[in-house]
Amino acid sequence: MNVVSYRPEPAELSYTFGGRPPVRRVAPGTVLELYTEDCFGGRVRGVDDLPSAVCEFPYLNPVTGPFFVEGAEPGDTLALHFVSIEPARDWAVSTTFPHFGALTSTHTTATLQPPLEERVWMYDVDAGKGVVRYHARRGDYVAEMPLDPMHGTVGVAPGASEARMTITPDAHGGNMDSPELRAGVTAYFGVNVEGALFAIGDGHCRQGHGEVCGTAVEAAMNTVVAVDLIKGAGTPWPRFEDDGHIMSTGSARPLEDAYRISQHDLVTWTSALTGLELLDAYQLVSQAGQAPVGNVCDTNYTMLAKLPKDYLGAAVPYDGVHARLRALGERYLNER
Amino acid sequence: MNVVSYRPEPAELSYTFGGRPPVRRVAPGTVLELYTEDCFGGRVRGVDDLPSAVCEFPYLNPVTGPFFVEGAEPGDTLALHFVSIEPARDWAVSTTFPHFGALTSTHTTATLQPPLEERVWMYDVDAGKGVVRYHARRGDYVAEMPLDPMHGTVGVAPGASEARMTITPDAHGGNMDSPELRAGVTAYFGVNVEGALFAIGDGHCRQGHGEVCGTAVEAAMNTVVAVDLIKGAGTPWPRFEDDGHIMSTGSARPLEDAYRISQHDLVTWTSALTGLELLDAYQLVSQAGQAPVGNVCDTNYTMLAKLPKDYLGAAVPYDGVHARLRALGERYLNER
Amino acid sequence: MNVVSYRPEPAELSYTFGGRPPVRRVAPGTVLELYTEDCFGGRVRGVDDLPSAVCEFPYLNPVTGPFFVEGAEPGDTLALHFVSIEPARDWAVSTTFPHFGALTSTHTTATLQPPLEERVWMYDVDAGKGVVRYHARRGDYVAEMPLDPMHGTVGVAPGASEARMTITPDAHGGNMDSPELRAGVTAYFGVNVEGALFAIGDGHCRQGHGEVCGTAVEAAMNTVVAVDLIKGAGTPWPRFEDDGHIMSTGSARPLEDAYRISQHDLVTWTSALTGLELLDAYQLVSQAGQAPVGNVCDTNYTMLAKLPKDYLGAAVPYDGVHARLRALGERYLNER
Amino acid sequence: MNVVSYRPEPAELSYTFGGRPPVRRVAPGTVLELYTEDCFGGRVRGVDDLPSAVCEFPYLNPVTGPFFVEGAEPGDTLALHFVSIEPARDWAVSTTFPHFGALTSTHTTATLQPPLEERVWMYDVDAGKGVVRYHARRGDYVAEMPLDPMHGTVGVAPGASEARMTITPDAHGGNMDSPELRAGVTAYFGVNVEGALFAIGDGHCRQGHGEVCGTAVEAAMNTVVAVDLIKGAGTPWPRFEDDGHIMSTGSARPLEDAYRISQHDLVTWTSALTGLELLDAYQLVSQAGQAPVGNVCDTNYTMLAKLPKDYLGAAVPYDGVHARLRALGERYLNER
Repeated sequence: MNVVSYRPEPAELSYTFGGRPPVRRVAPGTVLELYTEDCFGGRVRGVDDLPSAVCEFPYLNPVTGPFFVEGAEPGDTLALHFVSIEPARDWAVSTTFPHFGALTSTHTTATLQPPLEERVWMYDVDAGKGVVRYHARRGDYVAEMPLDPMHGTVGVAPGASEARMTITPDAHGGNMDSPELRAGVTAYFGVNVEGALFAIGDGHCRQGHGEVCGTAVEAAMNTVVAVDLIKGAGTPWPRFEDDGHIMSTGSARPLEDAYRISQHDLVTWTSALTGLELLDAYQLVSQAGQAPVGNVCDTNYTMLAKLPKDYLGAAVPYDGVHARLRALGERYLNER
Repeated sequence: MNVVSYRPEPAELSYTFGGRPPVRRVAPGTVLELYTEDCFGGRVRGVDDLPSAVCEFPYLNPVTGPFFVEGAEPGDTLALHFVSIEPARDWAVSTTFPHFGALTSTHTTATLQPPLEERVWMYDVDAGKGVVRYHARRGDYVAEMPLDPMHGTVGVAPGASEARMTITPDAHGGNMDSPELRAGVTAYFGVNVEGALFAIGDGHCRQGHGEVCGTAVEAAMNTVVAVDLIKGAGTPWPRFEDDGHIMSTGSARPLEDAYRISQHDLVTWTSALTGLELLDAYQLVSQAGQAPVGNVCDTNYTMLAKLPKDYLGAAVPYDGVHARLRALGERYLNER
Repeated sequence: MNVVSYRPEPAELSYTFGGRPPVRRVAPGTVLELYTEDCFGGRVRGVDDLPSAVCEFPYLNPVTGPFFVEGAEPGDTLALHFVSIEPARDWAVSTTFPHFGALTSTHTTATLQPPLEERVWMYDVDAGKGVVRYHARRGDYVAEMPLDPMHGTVGVAPGASEARMTITPDAHGGNMDSPELRAGVTAYFGVNVEGALFAIGDGHCRQGHGEVCGTAVEAAMNTVVAVDLIKGAGTPWPRFEDDGHIMSTGSARPLEDAYRISQHDLVTWTSALTGLELLDAYQLVSQAGQAPVGNVCDTNYTMLAKLPKDYLGAAVPYDGVHARLRALGERYLNER
Repeated sequence: MNVVSYRPEPAELSYTFGGRPPVRRVAPGTVLELYTEDCFGGRVRGVDDLPSAVCEFPYLNPVTGPFFVEGAEPGDTLALHFVSIEPARDWAVSTTFPHFGALTSTHTTATLQPPLEERVWMYDVDAGKGVVRYHARRGDYVAEMPLDPMHGTVGVAPGASEARMTITPDAHGGNMDSPELRAGVTAYFGVNVEGALFAIGDGHCRQGHGEVCGTAVEAAMNTVVAVDLIKGAGTPWPRFEDDGHIMSTGSARPLEDAYRISQHDLVTWTSALTGLELLDAYQLVSQAGQAPVGNVCDTNYTMLAKLPKDYLGAAVPYDGVHARLRALGERYLNER
């Protein structure tokens, strides 16, 4: 088994997809052990550490990478299977942030109202019990919520010579902030540049749907990813696959366009996989499909379209790479 | 037990919320047995019955009602508990419809492209097996999907002397098209006019998230609803409650506004129920909340915000009316 | 000349389009002299008269009417030519209003921020000089702006048995808030119900583009309208015509849909008038068309699409009714 | 007078803002003579040259530049005064383009409908007469439209280490497609990187409002720009100034956000210039402001907010740089 470990120095963190040289080269089939810093760069460590004071724009939402995948060329598809995602600390953090979030005016949904208060919440991470613990800042309300680790930000270098802030989700991936991106899931990205140049960050211990206040239960993560490459297979928008479902993503504004992109991709993908005529696939997805919300707070919003694999018959997406990477990941975990 | 049965004659069907006299008066505490016609008025009965030929605009999406609730006044809240929702026929129907749906241009998202083909799919309803059966129109693909009956359209007369087409969801309810509105759920509506004047229609055997093609697995329904009234309690937007969750709805365009309305209501409602300070409730919902998609195809789009009741501590919404109506419904089912 | 005068008593004012009996019957060819109250019902008369204190929702934005036009049937088009629009008082008023306007959160673009301050500005109306005079509330800044009277709200009863608040613009007209609706303009509305049932209100001494703060320089008006009917001619969305231009309106959310509707109507209308093939008309409008903004603050947003008549060649919209009504209006003014 | 001339070789054209080394260094006070290629790279030269055949994505919408402005640092404002914009050929071109434009589904407003026909229109440019001549492709309709040259694309390198396709407008400028960007106008951009790195392209002989079909009357241009730098003055979004008006831009989706950004900037800028308290400035702009539409077809939409300088009293934006550059430009034209 080809295992590569990488823990970035602070100066190695990246704040864009595209526009950066790779930090490592990996071959398809590699199992990659990564450390990712939290979206605040680890600088918010207590309720008095206001992000606007301790963080410096645009040095937010750092990602680990990019990684150059040997043999990856435009027109291929990169497969990243998340073997495990484990909080690296026994605490996590969430905040409101001035003019960021769904229930506040923002720099684009601009109003003349003052911003909401900037406030920090510290969470306990109890991996043994499988929970995070929320403490209200006013009063003594405490609640435990299930731990459900995920990565908010995963993607490749965009096409057209672009470099994009890691906070922006788009066709290259980026900050999709979907709770569906948990361990056991394979994510697919169309390759835009030689080497694909993927990167991963923004670990969440858990996240509500839409990340309504703008941040999740943010945490540094120790994450293991199995990497593979599907030559000559295009992927127009990031797709996910777990044991039971296929999923398409869309990231855009307004939110209905994120919905349209993801459902359009799921319909056409389902049609291609099953041989169903296009409107027949449209009908199938209309009745059997789901629509998990990713983020409704970033510079683009993200939605997913999700279909149980039961409806695919014998069809196997991407020639079965998910099952192969899942097996590789299990072998890795057993041997670890 | 006060049980009222009502099966509308075709001429009694209503196509608006507001602007119509009541068909019956019911007292709080009544169990109401209803028949609702499907969204096509029962006129699409085979694959050759194109809606544009057999239906006449605006006589679409008929509702059964309105019902005058004795004692209901503006400022009160109407509670409708769905005891049972059962398909009335062994078939159901879905269609594409010219310039209607999420993956087509529409009369508002106007383009110069021709409409998609208008096509009808007939479903078998197998209540015994608990499934509906989909048949592709091209090829021999067949799939069974779980039966999960719901009502797309429920609401009261709007305020401000308005009358709205039943196809439109807004603060009065209407065509929210949420799969969450199934048996076992209590729906709450703010009362705008004397008697509340609620009506119910648009039964679905099941529905994908967003009703992407514009219609669900449409069916006539035999539905039982337990009715109650909460005096002096306001409800700004329709809310739902099941045994495990509270839910707020929002209906608007663009879709992010439906999200904002529903999440805003859930945050302020949670704050009011728990005593959590507003931003603390915002944080709680941000991490623990869900966001089921209703429709992304109607004249307004609908989203829900949903929170497990575990996070409410000892708080009981609307003074426990859900539990009381649920018990009433069970008693009704046992005695039936 | 058939001249009808009508000045409503306060109790006769209407707050919806649809759902109300007519106040008068008028024959096509009638010149109608009207009084319209301002959007606050004349109750905001000084800087201390906060609308939220002196006005009662939903009794806002009253219109004068509806008028039953003899012979008008669904499928016809109503033509209303604005002969003159004159402020009825020597003062006018504008305000901010809680959670209303483009640069504030609203009930649909819901945020957790507090509302902006509610503030009233009183304007002097100097009809002789042709200006209104703005006085800042803080400091001694004063500015004169050209008087450019218009009606924000004009429309007919909607179809599908609907009744809509006067504040909402849609396919029936309503609160479009377009500065293009000034004297000299003919407005066309598709007739949805027998008698058309048109009404007029919401006079503005002038208005910026989009009515960004939510209100214009609001004033009661003495307005003269020449009424005509075009039998058998449909009008999908309200259209305007002045001596030099044809204009289509669209009202929807998000704002791009208002743009799409209006441009789509202008393209197809131009194609029908000129015989230009559809894409050729699309190209013509793309290079020669204008897009005046109506409102970006109401429950639907409004945009116009506008084309100089020079590009129509010999084509005359609606068989020349604009020229005839314009001549009738001039005769009326000469004889007055 | 410091005059620099630059005509790019094809290989020197740029397709992004950011991510490219400068082609020239210029000092503040320089008059720059430029050649810009049309948005098709000059490859669409007849009605049979379909863009999808003769152009290669992403090599569309080339810009001339970037130029390094000596002394420019983040926090400064770059001023570009357009002295003259002259079509470089006696023909220009416009097209429909698959899934691009306002009245078609797109890659984000995704539908299952087929694209509109791809079609090319060739225009005659008659600079002497001051017109462009449109020829319908079906039939013999011909129309002359006033020549009104402008640049669709102007901007600087974005911040946060981003590189953006030239087709995207945002806070750095880019493809705003505003007819207001004509000769006689000074455009202001906040500097994000050392040297500012501005570039210019996408000349239009004229353009309708919103560029509804996706392209204007596209032409190569000979353009003269006077360059200056305002040290220590920030500009959050591109602003324009002509002899009579100040203008703010906003680029976002949905379109109302472009409106909000631009109006918000105009209100706060007006407040800063005049000393008017914020809500007083909001009121002034609400009644006196205009809202020219830029594009409603690109990856972000663009709107402008525009105020006559009469309302600014004695205030002079950016310390009078517009008047100085205008004088410099006139001197250049006189000496040419």
